[in-house]
Amino acid sequence: MKNIKLTIEFDGSNFCGWQKQPKGRTVQETIEKAIFKATNEQIEINGSSRTDSGVHAKSMVANFFTNSTIPSEKFREAINVRLPEDVSIIKSEEVAENFHARYSSKGKTYSYTIINRYERLSLGHQYLYHYRYPLDFNKMEEACKYFVGTHDFRAFMSPGSSIKTTIRTIYELYLKRDGDKIQIFITGNGFLYNMVRIIVGTLLKVGNGKIKPEEIESIIKEGNRKRAGMCVPANGLILEKVFY
Amino acid sequence: MKNIKLTIEFDGSNFCGWQKQPKGRTVQETIEKAIFKATNEQIEINGSSRTDSGVHAKSMVANFFTNSTIPSEKFREAINVRLPEDVSIIKSEEVAENFHARYSSKGKTYSYTIINRYERLSLGHQYLYHYRYPLDFNKMEEACKYFVGTHDFRAFMSPGSSIKTTIRTIYELYLKRDGDKIQIFITGNGFLYNMVRIIVGTLLKVGNGKIKPEEIESIIKEGNRKRAGMCVPANGLILEKVFY
Repeated sequence: MKNIKLTIEFDGSNFCGWQKQPKGRTVQETIEKAIFKATNEQIEINGSSRTDSGVHAKSMVANFFTNSTIPSEKFREAINVRLPEDVSIIKSEEVAENFHARYSSKGKTYSYTIINRYERLSLGHQYLYHYRYPLDFNKMEEACKYFVGTHDFRAFMSPGSSIKTTIRTIYELYLKRDGDKIQIFITGNGFLYNMVRIIVGTLLKVGNGKIKPEEIESIIKEGNRKRAGMCVPANGLILEKVFY
Repeated sequence: MKNIKLTIEFDGSNFCGWQKQPKGRTVQETIEKAIFKATNEQIEINGSSRTDSGVHAKSMVANFFTNSTIPSEKFREAINVRLPEDVSIIKSEEVAENFHARYSSKGKTYSYTIINRYERLSLGHQYLYHYRYPLDFNKMEEACKYFVGTHDFRAFMSPGSSIKTTIRTIYELYLKRDGDKIQIFITGNGFLYNMVRIIVGTLLKVGNGKIKPEEIESIIKEGNRKRAGMCVPANGLILEKVFY
């Protein structure tokens, strides 16, 4: 029995997220069905994250155990030919027996892309969040440093998940600007439910002047969800990388 | 009666092109219906180009005549609130009576985006053409100069349109590379049917070594469609700008 690690790219626009559910098309189920067609094995794959509906991934990671004789690196094509266009296996490889896509993960990088212009947005709207009011980019950049480090991020979490601790470590948080496009890159050891999207919403609150960059410190300390920003829409979010 | 010029952005993924037709959702008809809802006038709009199914636009131009009392610059919002998410009016303004989006046009810029990597592509597949074989970027760049100028481009045209002349002028053609992304920008006084997509296909034929950059000259001279490259898919194509 081999443990196969898959690196997966998907366009989340037409998926109800990663995790299998009774109703709705999910990435997990779509891949499991393709594996069944390729191997005739009814396996369950472990995903590194349970991405929400509409969230995209450049390199989601998953693993599964198989008795198939398909060579490990050939799983990529064997699965791809049975997948719809909006999900692709980028790499397949054999890994150690104890590798688990979720529990072995040491961290993740997400990006979030905003188009900041007054005019309505149509081109690429599945991948971009349109924010029409002026943003002070420098203040948003200044705010980033307050998030970095090990903190209790309970102010940046939506309800609905059962977790042991709300303490997480953010290794890096920075912005990139190109014309009216602002990209936010965040790397951490793990993220609470909606944490990335609420941090982005809080950076927007800094950018539009509703809070000062240095207020982030007390918002984290106080742990009051109401003082943080809104949870921005899922479609601007991309899972960029999972670290092991 | 006012002549209103509209600058329009649209995601062509779910449109059967610009031009109204008996069957299928088109950009023209979608905008005309929104104008009808806003003004109660059954008008016809003139588009600068008849983009094909799947082609996108950052700034398509159209014009129409109206008796409506809506101030010219307010048409933008009046129409936008009645449009679906995949088409947006970026600007509305009054122009001279003799302005015609198509006949007054002095030229256009298109871009075409290729992702050049072995692995299958899912993220952004509606906007990108995935080309999996190696490409020699330098040779493709070298080939560009042979297209620039006034030439008979009949080798770079699909059949199916009635035109007076196949002579066109290309003002500029250049490539940009960013990682595995190659973007082609082309500006000309006008383009034959599928001309941009066949020029891109010919640049790919140069990039994969099937023809040499300098052969472009004789392909243009000979006017033989078979020696030029394939017509690449519509979804990588964006109408960037229309000049007046």
